[in-house]
Amino acid sequence: MPVGTVASVKGVHQRELKEEIDPDIILGNTYHLFLRPGMDILKGAGGLHGFMGWDRALLTDSGGYQVYSLSGNRKIREEGVQFQSHIDGSRHFFTPESVMDLQRTIGADIIMAFDECTPYPCDYRYAEESMHMTHRWLDRCLTHLKESPPIYGFEQLFFPIVQGSTYTDLRKQSAEYIAAADAPGNAIGGLSVGEPAEEMYAMADAVCAILPEEKPRYLMGVGTPINILENIALGVDMFDCVMPTRNARNGMLFTSEGTINIKNKKWEDDYTPLDPMGITFVDREYSKAYLRHLFAANEYLGKQIATIHNLGFYLWLVREARRRILDGTFASWKSQMVRQMDKRL
Amino acid sequence: MPVGTVASVKGVHQRELKEEIDPDIILGNTYHLFLRPGMDILKGAGGLHGFMGWDRALLTDSGGYQVYSLSGNRKIREEGVQFQSHIDGSRHFFTPESVMDLQRTIGADIIMAFDECTPYPCDYRYAEESMHMTHRWLDRCLTHLKESPPIYGFEQLFFPIVQGSTYTDLRKQSAEYIAAADAPGNAIGGLSVGEPAEEMYAMADAVCAILPEEKPRYLMGVGTPINILENIALGVDMFDCVMPTRNARNGMLFTSEGTINIKNKKWEDDYTPLDPMGITFVDREYSKAYLRHLFAANEYLGKQIATIHNLGFYLWLVREARRRILDGTFASWKSQMVRQMDKRL
Repeated sequence: MPVGTVASVKGVHQRELKEEIDPDIILGNTYHLFLRPGMDILKGAGGLHGFMGWDRALLTDSGGYQVYSLSGNRKIREEGVQFQSHIDGSRHFFTPESVMDLQRTIGADIIMAFDECTPYPCDYRYAEESMHMTHRWLDRCLTHLKESPPIYGFEQLFFPIVQGSTYTDLRKQSAEYIAAADAPGNAIGGLSVGEPAEEMYAMADAVCAILPEEKPRYLMGVGTPINILENIALGVDMFDCVMPTRNARNGMLFTSEGTINIKNKKWEDDYTPLDPMGITFVDREYSKAYLRHLFAANEYLGKQIATIHNLGFYLWLVREARRRILDGTFASWKSQMVRQMDKRL
Repeated sequence: MPVGTVASVKGVHQRELKEEIDPDIILGNTYHLFLRPGMDILKGAGGLHGFMGWDRALLTDSGGYQVYSLSGNRKIREEGVQFQSHIDGSRHFFTPESVMDLQRTIGADIIMAFDECTPYPCDYRYAEESMHMTHRWLDRCLTHLKESPPIYGFEQLFFPIVQGSTYTDLRKQSAEYIAAADAPGNAIGGLSVGEPAEEMYAMADAVCAILPEEKPRYLMGVGTPINILENIALGVDMFDCVMPTRNARNGMLFTSEGTINIKNKKWEDDYTPLDPMGITFVDREYSKAYLRHLFAANEYLGKQIATIHNLGFYLWLVREARRRILDGTFASWKSQMVRQMDKRL
C-alpha cells in the first residue's frame, strides 16, 4: 500500500497513482487526518474517499504509531493516550473507542485496532504488560464498533494487531489472542522499529504459523524490497511503508538491479533511461542525467519522478511475487532478487 | 509560454504539460542552464530538447535579465557583463558573443539577443546610453551568429530586443533600430520591472506602432491575465511569465471570475470543483476544500494542482483571445474579462 499520510501520496496525482502505479488500496494516517483537515471537514466530504477523490480501497491505521513516534508529552494509561500535536502542541486524548469513531468518520474500507506499538529494544516486563493492554483495547474496539455502525453505507473491515515486541513467546500468545477475534484480516505491529531484520523475520515467522492463512496477514510499516520478499516467503500478504516515497524524495531509487543514489556525480552524463524495465512512464521518458540534474537544482519534479518510479517498482515487485507463487517459481526468484537488490549501483 | 527555468516547468511532468496544458512553446533561462546542468551536459544530450524530453518548441532568453536581478557583484562594461553565480559565488563573464554560443549549445528554436535590462526607475541619461549599448550588442550578436551556425541541424530564430526604459522617445528610437534588423520576430524588454501598468501599456503601444505587424511581437516577462489582455489589444503576440507557476505555489489561483487565495479559511469546507470551467483535469477532479487542505498541510501536491490550474487558465486565456480576434469580438470580451478578473473571490 502506497502511503497517503494526509490525504495525498506525496507528489503524486490520484489519477497518476491509478493509471501508472495501479494499487488496489492506499493507506491514510488517522493521527494526521485527525489534526488536518480534521473530522468535520472529512465528514462534510462524505469521508476520505470523496475528500481526496480516491474511488479504490483505503486503509487507515489507528493513529497509535504516530502518537508514540511523533507527538510530544504522551501519557499512556489504561483508559487511553494523552498527547500533544506535533503541529501546534494542542492536547488530545485517544481511546480505543474514540479512535474507532475517528475511523468511522474517515470511512476507510479497512480500519485498524488501537494498540500500543512498543519501542525497540523493549524490556520483557514492559512488552508483556503492553501486549495485555493492547488485547484489552482490542476488546474495547470490538465492543464499540458493534455499537457504532458505519456511517457511509458500506462495510468497514476491522483488523486487530499482534504485538509482543521481539519475544517469541509473547508474539505467539498475542497471535493466539488476535486469531481468536476471528476478524476478516490480521495485522502484525511493533516491528520495523529498529530491530535487526533477522528478529523481524523470526517474529513474522512465529506469528504467521498461528494467524489463519485464509485471511490476509498485514505486516505494518515494512519495509525494504528485500524485507517484503522475505516476509512474503513467511506468509505475509499485505504491507505499507513510506520507504518508496520518502527515499525517492531523497534521491534513492529502487530497481531490480540494485539501488541508485541519483544525486551521485556518476549519473551526471548518463543519458540512458531511468530504468530499462520501464514499469512506469518516468522510467522510459526521463534519463538518469536529467533526474540527477533535477535533484542538483532542487527542482520538485525530481522528487515527483523518483516517487513514481519507486512506487511503480514496489507494486511490480509484489505483483511479480504473486505471479511466482502461483506458478511455483517464487523461492528461486526470491533468492535471485534478494542478491541483486542488495547491490548499490 | 510557461516558464521552465532550469529545464523543468516547476512541479509539472512534461507529459502533463503537453496533454493538459498543451502549449506550443515553453521558455528556458540561459543563465540558470549555464550554471546548472552546464553546457557540457546539455551538449551531451544533444541540447535542451533531448535533455528534458521536450519535442515542441523552446525559447531561451539571453541570461541578461537574470544577471542583473539575481547575481552578485555584476559589472556591466561595453565588452560584456562580469557577475557572480547566485548559487556558489563563482565568477563568470557574459558577452553578446558568448551568450550566442550558449544559446547555440542549448539549442532552443527561438534565441534572444543579449541586452541590458534597465531597472525602474531609471534616469534618462542612463536609459539612453544603455539603449545604445544594447543596439551595439545586437550588431555583435548578429555578426557572431553568422559566423557560428546552429549545431543540431535545425534553424534557430533570433529575436532582437527593444529597450529604452519608460521614455517614449527612446522606445521609438529603439523600435526603429530593432525593426531595421529585419529579424523573424521582435521582443520588447525592460518592462514589468516595477513600473505602473499604464507606463507599460504606453511603451508597448509606442513600440507596437513601429515593430512590423506581420512578425511576432514578444513582450518579455509579462504578466497578469489583465496585463496580457491589454497588451494583446495593443498588438503583442507572445508572452512569458513566472506568475502562473510562482503564484500557484503560493496558493493563488487565476480564474475567469477573479483570483482565489486558496489558503483562506473560507474554502475549508467548499467541496465544489476547483474551477467550474474545467479547463484541466485538476479543475474537475479536486475540490477547493481538498486543495485548501493540501496547502494547509504543506503537501506538495497542492502546488502541483495549483500550477496545472493556472497554466491551463493562462493558455485558455490566450487561445480565447485569438479566437475572439478572429471572430471580431475581442474588444467587448476583453473589457468584460478585465472587469471580472480584477475581483478577489
